[in-house]
Amino acid sequence: MKQVSFTLVATDGAARRGRIDTPRGDIQTPAFMPVGTAGTVKAMYPEQVRETGADIVLGNTYHLMLRPGAERVAGLGGLHTFMDWERPILTDSGGFQVMSLSQLRKLTEHGVTFKSHIDGSSHELTPERSIKIQTLLDSDIIMQLDECISLPAERKEIERAMELSLRWADRSKSAFNNQANRALFGIVQGGDDASLRARSAQGLTSIGFDGYAVGGLAVGEPQEVMFRVLDEIVPELPEDRPHYLMGVGKPDDILGAIGRGIDMFDCVHPTRAGRHGHVYSRFGVINLKNARHKDDHRPIDEASPNSNCRRFSRAYLHHLVRTEEILGAMILSQINLAYYQELVQGARAAIERGGFTDFAAQTRASWSAGDLPLL
Amino acid sequence: MKQVSFTLVATDGAARRGRIDTPRGDIQTPAFMPVGTAGTVKAMYPEQVRETGADIVLGNTYHLMLRPGAERVAGLGGLHTFMDWERPILTDSGGFQVMSLSQLRKLTEHGVTFKSHIDGSSHELTPERSIKIQTLLDSDIIMQLDECISLPAERKEIERAMELSLRWADRSKSAFNNQANRALFGIVQGGDDASLRARSAQGLTSIGFDGYAVGGLAVGEPQEVMFRVLDEIVPELPEDRPHYLMGVGKPDDILGAIGRGIDMFDCVHPTRAGRHGHVYSRFGVINLKNARHKDDHRPIDEASPNSNCRRFSRAYLHHLVRTEEILGAMILSQINLAYYQELVQGARAAIERGGFTDFAAQTRASWSAGDLPLL
Repeated sequence: MKQVSFTLVATDGAARRGRIDTPRGDIQTPAFMPVGTAGTVKAMYPEQVRETGADIVLGNTYHLMLRPGAERVAGLGGLHTFMDWERPILTDSGGFQVMSLSQLRKLTEHGVTFKSHIDGSSHELTPERSIKIQTLLDSDIIMQLDECISLPAERKEIERAMELSLRWADRSKSAFNNQANRALFGIVQGGDDASLRARSAQGLTSIGFDGYAVGGLAVGEPQEVMFRVLDEIVPELPEDRPHYLMGVGKPDDILGAIGRGIDMFDCVHPTRAGRHGHVYSRFGVINLKNARHKDDHRPIDEASPNSNCRRFSRAYLHHLVRTEEILGAMILSQINLAYYQELVQGARAAIERGGFTDFAAQTRASWSAGDLPLL
Repeated sequence: MKQVSFTLVATDGAARRGRIDTPRGDIQTPAFMPVGTAGTVKAMYPEQVRETGADIVLGNTYHLMLRPGAERVAGLGGLHTFMDWERPILTDSGGFQVMSLSQLRKLTEHGVTFKSHIDGSSHELTPERSIKIQTLLDSDIIMQLDECISLPAERKEIERAMELSLRWADRSKSAFNNQANRALFGIVQGGDDASLRARSAQGLTSIGFDGYAVGGLAVGEPQEVMFRVLDEIVPELPEDRPHYLMGVGKPDDILGAIGRGIDMFDCVHPTRAGRHGHVYSRFGVINLKNARHKDDHRPIDEASPNSNCRRFSRAYLHHLVRTEEILGAMILSQINLAYYQELVQGARAAIERGGFTDFAAQTRASWSAGDLPLL
């Protein structure tokens, strides 16, 4: 019997409040999944990630297959043991990073061959190999291999990649072999073209997946295009399965996508922005590199539930960022991940009480009001 | 009344077990002080530093005067508030880093002028200004400005620097103005010359300090020279004051110096070595970059009291080091600082029971036995 299941707990307009049960624990949705690219959420201990409220993290197949290698991770007890994270892990298929990072790619019907961006070694990724790698990593939620192209693109090119992704979806489903303790998600492609997206969703639904991701967004298009595609495609996805918007995004993207029926998100943005001195908060984005913080004894947000937002002055964080101290990356990554979790937790509570529209409006108004006045 | 005092609790040969009382808490000696160069012990939260067993941290006057600036730190409530470390802080005088890091130095009787290694801005450090900066930082233990030269050096040059340091010691004492809530330490110079060292100790003792540091060691000389100088000079230092060996060192240096009557140590080595993949343990130094750890599921030391030594496999740590992940620096800095604290804690207990010689021999034998056998 399938040990991974999705329960829709409440809806509020198109917004959904749900729960994914897995053998490694529940995932409350809408969920934000911190990205643990190479077996670590950068600059965070696993328990710190959990304490922000994360139920699940994402691992990157491309990075892990190159270093330390999937067979090695399996030999060491799987990715959960390797990185000391007991709760669920979703792994991507590796396809996106092959396209964005590797060199000398060659794409065929069979799969994609490429050279590692690290040492130039040759590798192959096929739908079957991607499932195999993700199984070796002991992933709880496995993604099909797809071809993700940047926007804008020609309709013909979008269609070709979408159709290839559909055929790869079919091969992924066979290779996955209906493992009970894991989920397999299909990925809707089709760029910004409504009819291609619909065709993709239809094709995936007839193959049948445990969840449906929207891929090929957050690849250079304006937010309004992304929202328009979501408006068109989410209603086409099975209601009784989780909907995952891949690689998204900034807090405002997440709010907008939750309002359009998305349940799951992942993005490197909060940790990467933290490493660059940008903090997400109810005041919007704060750039701690800015000289205005130099003598500011005030914390990021004295009303925050997160102690890192209360205990360190802006002046100290400014100093850590300017001196490129590791502790700066540690604190700001934690603050951003905690804020993202606060955001999805707020969205969950709002959907449950039927107040998501107000929650989103109030949250956006708070961001627009901006940072504390100058001292 | 003086609020900083030293109590000698026990002796074992030349080795001493003591306690420094300060308004911000006790410092158990022998003590290892982690270095928080620029207002942070690199890659560690302050509470993590405390949890390793550290009673005190060191701040670098040179770095802090340049960024964020002593007056700024004072305006923000002092260094303890700034970095959220409530317990004692010792600050150095800035002299050592001026000599090793800054550009276009000009040394006169009055002090030293130099250009910042960061932005080329001009600064001056005099005995009086150094005391002023350390007071602005709200340091608990203040060091006199001295001139520290590298070894080997001509006797005449060593003597000149030592005599200048003595005159600066006198000016430092006047500038310090006997503040009750802080301690002022003098610094013995004199290179590897016994008579110059004795002259320096005598000069400092007649000025009178709350503690006596041995400077100008760990500046390129072999360990045997350092130990010989300690054998000669430590007996010349007042018994009722703490003895601090500046900038030392590796675990074996620390063991040897404790056996020669040193009470306090500081060194960037444990955190710097951690950032480079080197781990200190009862097995000696382990280089985690080494390919032998690639598939090793064993932790660093399953019998360690430190959970970071037990929970992560060597293979995982090897992976973090090879991929240059920040978490690697975080974990290995913590492991090394915890091991240094374990070492001084072990020394304290051994001195109390009169077994320091055995403790040192057993510890060295354990290091010599080396790492776990290959898998």
